[in-house]
Formats: sequence, C-alpha cells, structure tokens
Amino acid sequence: MRQVRHPERDEITFIAVVAAFSDPIRVGLLRVLADGRERQWGELRAPVAKSTLSHHLRVLRDAGVTRTRQEGTRCYVELRREDLDARFPGLVDAVLHGAEGDDVGADVGVVDNASTSRPAG
Amino acid sequence: MRQVRHPERDEITFIAVVAAFSDPIRVGLLRVLADGRERQWGELRAPVAKSTLSHHLRVLRDAGVTRTRQEGTRCYVELRREDLDARFPGLVDAVLHGAEGDDVGADVGVVDNASTSRPAG
Repeated sequence: MRQVRHPERDEITFIAVVAAFSDPIRVGLLRVLADGRERQWGELRAPVAKSTLSHHLRVLRDAGVTRTRQEGTRCYVELRREDLDARFPGLVDAVLHGAEGDDVGADVGVVDNASTSRPAG
Repeated sequence: MRQVRHPERDEITFIAVVAAFSDPIRVGLLRVLADGRERQWGELRAPVAKSTLSHHLRVLRDAGVTRTRQEGTRCYVELRREDLDARFPGLVDAVLHGAEGDDVGADVGVVDNASTSRPAG
C-alpha cells in the first residue's frame, strides 16, 4: 500500500478492466463497492485468504477499477465509477447486471453488520 | 472440431464470457463477428499462429460466445448474439463499444478482401 500508483483515467485500458472482472471474487468486490461507499479493507469479507483478497484488491486497483488510500495503518477502497463510466460507457452496469443475474461473487460482502453484508442493488 | 459441444443458452456463465473477452485477439474476433455474418475459419486473419487462433476460437465457443459448425472439411463460426444478449443484456454492446474506443483487437480481420478486412462498425 505504500506509494501506490493509480492509472489516470485515460491510462485505464479496456483489457485490464475486463480481465479484472473475469474473477468471481473481484466481481463480488465490485458489487460490494457499487453502492459508492468507501470501504475499509478490514470490512471486506470474502471466502479467500487475506493475502488472496489483497491480491484481488491490487488487481482491481492496478486496472483502474478502484482507488485505494491509506490513513494511518488503515487502507480504504472505493470504486472509480465515474472514471469507468467515462472510459467505457455501460460496461460497469452490464457487468453488475450480468453478475447479479448469475449471482457471481455473492459470497463477498462486508463484515460490520450482518444485515448490511450484501449491497442493496 | 469433431463432435463439439456448445453450452445451451442457460449454461452460459458470466465469468466464462467475461474471461473470453479479456484477450485482445478474442475481442478482435468478437468485433469481426459482430456484423452477424458467419465466417469460415480460413477467412479469419489474426497476428498469431494458426494453432493459437484455433485456441482462441475454442475459448469463445466453450464460453458460449460463438457457435461453430463443420461442413465437410471446413469450419464456420458465428456470434451467438441473441443468446448473449438474452443472458447478459448490454454486455456485448458495452464490450464492443469499449473495445472500439481502445481499438482493441483491431489487427484481427478477414482475409477475403482488403477493403472489407475491418468490420463496418
């Protein structure tokens, strides 16, 4: 997390974004973050090892799908929805819609409260 | 190509389709086939070895993106646009749009005539 570099909007590539969406855990993270809220990494729940979850978060960040920031010892992540919609109109919506239809990544959520462990939409 | 099995529409999975679109050659093939025309494998031009092209065509077929048929010694391929649009509304359109914007797979085309070696849209 030190000195992480995020691609600028116009550096985000189609193939990197689509590849980022080709894994169910990463699609689950996309679904969790689709409500626009910034999440602390520690809040995220996924059926994989912590190191694997970190890897997936890194793939999303490097692809330009998410933005991470560090505050003290804590890392936060949010979806770069505006950048993605500007670069690839309709792609995130189509991916979210398709993923919800297939229930892809449904076992990814947030841990703070059982009743909010799945995103609303 | 013998006895190839295509997934039924409801067997097509989101992750397999997105993974199929995570490679520039396969996206190029999608763009070529997006005009709805069935193409003979021999017509397809891509900057990869013939065996690699066959591999990509197989990935697309196994994912349910394309349908292939054999006629004598010739193989033909077409996009399963209706099935994809039914399963994942907006996904193919968003992928085509994003791929065109980034010019992904632009070096894939058809060989029959130089003037038609890029799909129209």
